[in-house]
Amino acid sequence: MDRLTPLPHAYRLARRDAQPSGTVVMLPNGAAFGGETVAICAGPCSVESREQIRSTAQTVAARGANVLRGGAFKPRTSPYAFQGLGADALKLLREAADACELSVVTEVMDPREVELVCAHADMVQIGARNMQNFSLLREVGESGKPVLLKRGLSATIHEWLMAAEYLLVSGNPNVVLCERGVRSFDNATRNLLDLSAVPLLRTLTHLPVIVDPSHGTGLAALVAPMGLAALAAGADGLLVEVHPNPSAAASDGQQSLSFEQFGAFMRQAEVVARAVGRAVPAATFAT
Amino acid sequence: MDRLTPLPHAYRLARRDAQPSGTVVMLPNGAAFGGETVAICAGPCSVESREQIRSTAQTVAARGANVLRGGAFKPRTSPYAFQGLGADALKLLREAADACELSVVTEVMDPREVELVCAHADMVQIGARNMQNFSLLREVGESGKPVLLKRGLSATIHEWLMAAEYLLVSGNPNVVLCERGVRSFDNATRNLLDLSAVPLLRTLTHLPVIVDPSHGTGLAALVAPMGLAALAAGADGLLVEVHPNPSAAASDGQQSLSFEQFGAFMRQAEVVARAVGRAVPAATFAT
Amino acid sequence: MDRLTPLPHAYRLARRDAQPSGTVVMLPNGAAFGGETVAICAGPCSVESREQIRSTAQTVAARGANVLRGGAFKPRTSPYAFQGLGADALKLLREAADACELSVVTEVMDPREVELVCAHADMVQIGARNMQNFSLLREVGESGKPVLLKRGLSATIHEWLMAAEYLLVSGNPNVVLCERGVRSFDNATRNLLDLSAVPLLRTLTHLPVIVDPSHGTGLAALVAPMGLAALAAGADGLLVEVHPNPSAAASDGQQSLSFEQFGAFMRQAEVVARAVGRAVPAATFAT
Amino acid sequence: MDRLTPLPHAYRLARRDAQPSGTVVMLPNGAAFGGETVAICAGPCSVESREQIRSTAQTVAARGANVLRGGAFKPRTSPYAFQGLGADALKLLREAADACELSVVTEVMDPREVELVCAHADMVQIGARNMQNFSLLREVGESGKPVLLKRGLSATIHEWLMAAEYLLVSGNPNVVLCERGVRSFDNATRNLLDLSAVPLLRTLTHLPVIVDPSHGTGLAALVAPMGLAALAAGADGLLVEVHPNPSAAASDGQQSLSFEQFGAFMRQAEVVARAVGRAVPAATFAT
Repeated sequence: MDRLTPLPHAYRLARRDAQPSGTVVMLPNGAAFGGETVAICAGPCSVESREQIRSTAQTVAARGANVLRGGAFKPRTSPYAFQGLGADALKLLREAADACELSVVTEVMDPREVELVCAHADMVQIGARNMQNFSLLREVGESGKPVLLKRGLSATIHEWLMAAEYLLVSGNPNVVLCERGVRSFDNATRNLLDLSAVPLLRTLTHLPVIVDPSHGTGLAALVAPMGLAALAAGADGLLVEVHPNPSAAASDGQQSLSFEQFGAFMRQAEVVARAVGRAVPAATFAT
Repeated sequence: MDRLTPLPHAYRLARRDAQPSGTVVMLPNGAAFGGETVAICAGPCSVESREQIRSTAQTVAARGANVLRGGAFKPRTSPYAFQGLGADALKLLREAADACELSVVTEVMDPREVELVCAHADMVQIGARNMQNFSLLREVGESGKPVLLKRGLSATIHEWLMAAEYLLVSGNPNVVLCERGVRSFDNATRNLLDLSAVPLLRTLTHLPVIVDPSHGTGLAALVAPMGLAALAAGADGLLVEVHPNPSAAASDGQQSLSFEQFGAFMRQAEVVARAVGRAVPAATFAT
Repeated sequence: MDRLTPLPHAYRLARRDAQPSGTVVMLPNGAAFGGETVAICAGPCSVESREQIRSTAQTVAARGANVLRGGAFKPRTSPYAFQGLGADALKLLREAADACELSVVTEVMDPREVELVCAHADMVQIGARNMQNFSLLREVGESGKPVLLKRGLSATIHEWLMAAEYLLVSGNPNVVLCERGVRSFDNATRNLLDLSAVPLLRTLTHLPVIVDPSHGTGLAALVAPMGLAALAAGADGLLVEVHPNPSAAASDGQQSLSFEQFGAFMRQAEVVARAVGRAVPAATFAT
Repeated sequence: MDRLTPLPHAYRLARRDAQPSGTVVMLPNGAAFGGETVAICAGPCSVESREQIRSTAQTVAARGANVLRGGAFKPRTSPYAFQGLGADALKLLREAADACELSVVTEVMDPREVELVCAHADMVQIGARNMQNFSLLREVGESGKPVLLKRGLSATIHEWLMAAEYLLVSGNPNVVLCERGVRSFDNATRNLLDLSAVPLLRTLTHLPVIVDPSHGTGLAALVAPMGLAALAAGADGLLVEVHPNPSAAASDGQQSLSFEQFGAFMRQAEVVARAVGRAVPAATFAT
């Protein structure tokens, strides 16, 4: 059985034995991916307004998140759907995060916008649809900025690690992988969250791995149990969608937690993290 | 979003609201599926010999398992592969289990063998390949024997609940569902373990749900982390393959835990179960 | 690239080189699977009444079908759906087929019913849900009756050939494979018809291969183009659902052709078959 | 059953009823997608040298191809694999095509390279990995250049049409869809070629649809039968990989036809096209 052995002529820099102790990716506010304390990235699918992102930032910071997520440029299936607030959203994100000592992660979709996004964010996200957008990978690789590489909609583990290799070989060692569910035959959930990727990647690569239970399930009721399961499986962090009023969200409301749900989840997460020898971040803001 | 609402003209008896408090399935030795204490089913893929099953029974009982699993009739892709010891295996299973106060679960593949299997086992398993073997479902349904219904290789949640409905409508209320991984495009793991089925089924049905991380991953190194994740996601039990000497197993050696690995796993399982308000069974045998 | 080389320790009797010239399976009325003239199996999803099956038999025979299909025992996802007329349907099928010199193919679901079905049918079908019902495979194998082995819902080519091997090793050489679509992530069609299985199987096995565009697409509008495509790809026959009044069918009405649609299809099929060096059967009944 | 009805709030410009008679996309040399004569695009996976692309162009033109394909910028899973000759390849393609009255189609991967590729090609290809690269879609949309939009690796029909909508809404009406196989659970073929997409798209959209049996199967032995099947299913053209020496190709040798195989295929294609009321192009070059 060679499922735990990398294929020949495959990834080199991403291999576990290239860094046996494991990589830790650090953000400016001290948020770490790959350390004993996990990283908690939380925030709305899309930045919608100054008030929305500010209140969300305060709330998630007060509950133990240490990275603020929020979409400025949104990859949408339909050209007629809300496409994000763009550059304005980047500023709102930065302002809201700075007020609460959070770092910022947000998606970049176009190689021509890497510089702009890097000017405002602490970590850039490459989304599932762009996992094999090789021009974008090279551009983000050359920026050196910490990067969150989401798994493609139907990417194999091998293809995902090869995409990471594009980043690493471009000179960027600060790569974090994010499992966010894959396509399956069953539409009972939006995607099929492949938590086994977490321990499998642990054997194959030194890169940190986090989990997005929001996109991974598409259903708010499943986010908390699957977030806990991800921690139990050994994830180095979570990416969770939180919105002041999920039913009114411009996008992804069905999978967003309310402030109250996020607070309840973080209390459980703290207990489960401890059960597997990890910890959740301390709150950086008091409400 | 109606993913959490059963389809019209669908399952009736399996619906959550047919038994809002949830079903608890009990076996003769007190093992319970659906209670605060989870059920731990452990044992070899196939019963190979008296000594093999006896030593395994003693070991897993001493570590907190309360149900002994072992294949007597084996569904094998190839007609040339080991097909199980059949009726002899049933006797060996019973004998080994009785010596350690374990209950017995084993697979039945043929409606003509339901009576035989029921005579020796406390719970009959319907395997993934037979999830929609409707003749078998009816026969097992009429037996009234507690049944472990594995999810089909590519069964939707809806089809799985409809298969349970066949059992329920035949008069058998003692149905436990077992997630064991589904087909995916990636062969990095044997199957893709769909842990989100656990919390999703909790909203849709009153039936207990357990998880098989052995078939669900096919890799021994992933069994412990995914078993812990299953408990964190709310599973009512686990089905784990354990073998005295995995590398010499007649089937499924790659995904079987050794005695030592199983012991280590159960110590972790106890801590994670407690973190989510559950408990693992007390040991019924001392080694 | 070894995709065209059978795996070691795999199927032996089904391998192409076990019968390099290819197997031809003959039915009593002369219908042949694997010869220059393709086999056309047509009829309703379910036998519903004497009049329904008789008029369908006459119509399809007059348009060039040489095998009458019709369900007596129906595998249904829901226990509350129509389950078929059972033994009565077998008699109606036989009677309708005999009046038009058609052979009969119908599904058997239970090893205890193989003898009954064989008494009325010229060919027994093992459905997709039972492709790995090994007890059923053995029982049908021992009957020696020509058998139509449908591909499982998510069976690999290798697993499918191994299922055929169960039949062959039980002493039954009269095995025909039927591609009927597999599970995919897209529900735009009921299944994803894998026509590449036809030429791929040609290289791997000597067994004839036919195609079911009705289940393969689930949409009547796609049946004709995909039936023609199957012939162009080299299929040895087709299995097509035809109903006097599709919108009133007890099952599968959406994918059934009307009499008129079937007639139009057969005229096109004759031309396409000729273009690839094959022929459709001559009509055995005049209307 | 609403599988043939577009979803609400979905594609508007791509809908069948926006152009009931169907769109015909014309290239400068008269090659047409959507007319009675199908389009045959042929050539190597990658442009490797002047001699390689010139001899291939002459051969495919002499056998009835009317569009020359060849990769200049290659999307490769591994950063260590051959990435294409880039701008040099564009010039070689143009030169080879012009000498044989062929049009040129080649892939563009980066929005910053759209202008460059458009300067040399008659049609730009958006590859499977970039089907939802929305920045690229907009840039190609604004160019107005005829575009070949490949289906994503696991794109639903709906998502594919929405990607086409991005092109259409950017002002480019010259969109051709190309089915090239999707991800499946079986690795017996490289991808699972979904030919049913051809007649399904015919009902949903006015855009022409062609098929790539080379990527769709990954096996040279399956290219001819599946190419014929595509024509029988109603495809408006084919995209076929042809190489002077497949076993020495820099990429995709296993799925490339030799010159001799391509010639034999085109003779069959002519007969099958005629059987369904279509024609293959006349040869534009004599060897």
